[in-house]
Amino acid sequence: MSASAPIGVFDSGLGGLTVVAALRRTMPGESIVYVGDTARVPYGPKSPETVRRYAREICGWLRGEGVKAIVVACNTATAHALPDLITFAGVPVIGVVEPGAEAAVATGAQAIGIIGTSGTIASGAYAKAIWQRAPHLTLVSQACPLFVPLVEEGWIEHPATRLIAREYLAPLLAAKVGTVVLGCTHYPLLRTVLAEVLGPEVSLVDSASATAAATREVLRAHQLRAPGDGASATLRVVASDAPEQFLRLGQRFLGAAIEQVERVTLG
Amino acid sequence: MSASAPIGVFDSGLGGLTVVAALRRTMPGESIVYVGDTARVPYGPKSPETVRRYAREICGWLRGEGVKAIVVACNTATAHALPDLITFAGVPVIGVVEPGAEAAVATGAQAIGIIGTSGTIASGAYAKAIWQRAPHLTLVSQACPLFVPLVEEGWIEHPATRLIAREYLAPLLAAKVGTVVLGCTHYPLLRTVLAEVLGPEVSLVDSASATAAATREVLRAHQLRAPGDGASATLRVVASDAPEQFLRLGQRFLGAAIEQVERVTLG
Repeated sequence: MSASAPIGVFDSGLGGLTVVAALRRTMPGESIVYVGDTARVPYGPKSPETVRRYAREICGWLRGEGVKAIVVACNTATAHALPDLITFAGVPVIGVVEPGAEAAVATGAQAIGIIGTSGTIASGAYAKAIWQRAPHLTLVSQACPLFVPLVEEGWIEHPATRLIAREYLAPLLAAKVGTVVLGCTHYPLLRTVLAEVLGPEVSLVDSASATAAATREVLRAHQLRAPGDGASATLRVVASDAPEQFLRLGQRFLGAAIEQVERVTLG
Repeated sequence: MSASAPIGVFDSGLGGLTVVAALRRTMPGESIVYVGDTARVPYGPKSPETVRRYAREICGWLRGEGVKAIVVACNTATAHALPDLITFAGVPVIGVVEPGAEAAVATGAQAIGIIGTSGTIASGAYAKAIWQRAPHLTLVSQACPLFVPLVEEGWIEHPATRLIAREYLAPLLAAKVGTVVLGCTHYPLLRTVLAEVLGPEVSLVDSASATAAATREVLRAHQLRAPGDGASATLRVVASDAPEQFLRLGQRFLGAAIEQVERVTLG
């Protein structure tokens, strides 16, 4: 495996581009191939077996492209498929749950809220990862299944989004959580509304930066950091379905321009 | 092809069960195999090519089960894939758009609103079908992409659903439409909220009954009506992914109990 090979990153759709943005900030010298499985988005309400099958297909495709490591930039896929992918992929695989849990515990809050898709919440993956580090913490989990469709539609600060957020977050407010883990890579785009509903006392933790830092450590440990200063680093964006909004909204997630979105058929 | 074979019916998810309910009312003697493609739901925001590929895979599977006709109980799949499926399927194929357009024109309204997924609205399928029958009518189309996730989540009469409906339907109210076509098989479940927002003067037309009547005519024309009185008619429900809510919500769509949901892998 060559250190100059790209890092593979995938998500069910657009959300994982927030992780790509963090990876580029942390390691500007690394090339990235990003896959958004827009033909089968969303993963959140789907069963663990189906999500595992999709994740394996994408990892197989990424391996065919010669990636040196794979970042599962999707909380649902991490929650359901990470152990399976670690066995299957043949390259280092990094998920978003452990780094996110680590960052949440580091805030020092005594009560932590966890929000995510139905799949992520039902898996208990964040609760397990947090309690392994700090078994005394109070955790409040809440599935927020409408947040992904709202973000994919671009309704980032819509009154309906605010109303839905108020309902989803009520149990977290009642439990007086000090920190909320954004357990879905789509949720950082709802930060303004979430912060408004939760109030200024509550810290919002997303996995993107923590996952980027963890990826850097894994690459170092495997002596797989890209040589050079990043002048030749590339970003290739691939989607399994290519509606116009992928390019349009994708730039918002990435915080930078995307030149083109290639299309591949998965599965 | 045997007249005692079942009718195949499919949709991206739960919505098509509203068509199954109408088929059972219209033809209690017919057995039905229903496929909900829950592993890839929703179809609405996906591209025409991807929806065509999924529709073909499902029709191939239904043919393998020996169905005598196929009802595309999904507006997005009808809009994108019907001509393709008619060529491919080898049995009569009935879509929901033409019957729905027919029923809308029959209301006699001079201005008609059409609501549906992004894919259905972008295809212009309803507008084409209505203008072919009545070119003088005023049509107002509105994509309502959040309605499917709201229904799939069971938020049928939630204040957020009402708020979103008010925003989506504003252009239809401004144009003083007399009839609104529910151009998505999920939308009949939102009938209460839609009627409340649109007011008592507006007729709501859904394709389910009209499609059932059209199916009866097609079967008659092909001498494929099931013999007998329906005592032995069966309903088999199959899904490509089986989250718990399929069974739970499915009964609401069908208006009757579902005994079990089988799982098949498509694609």
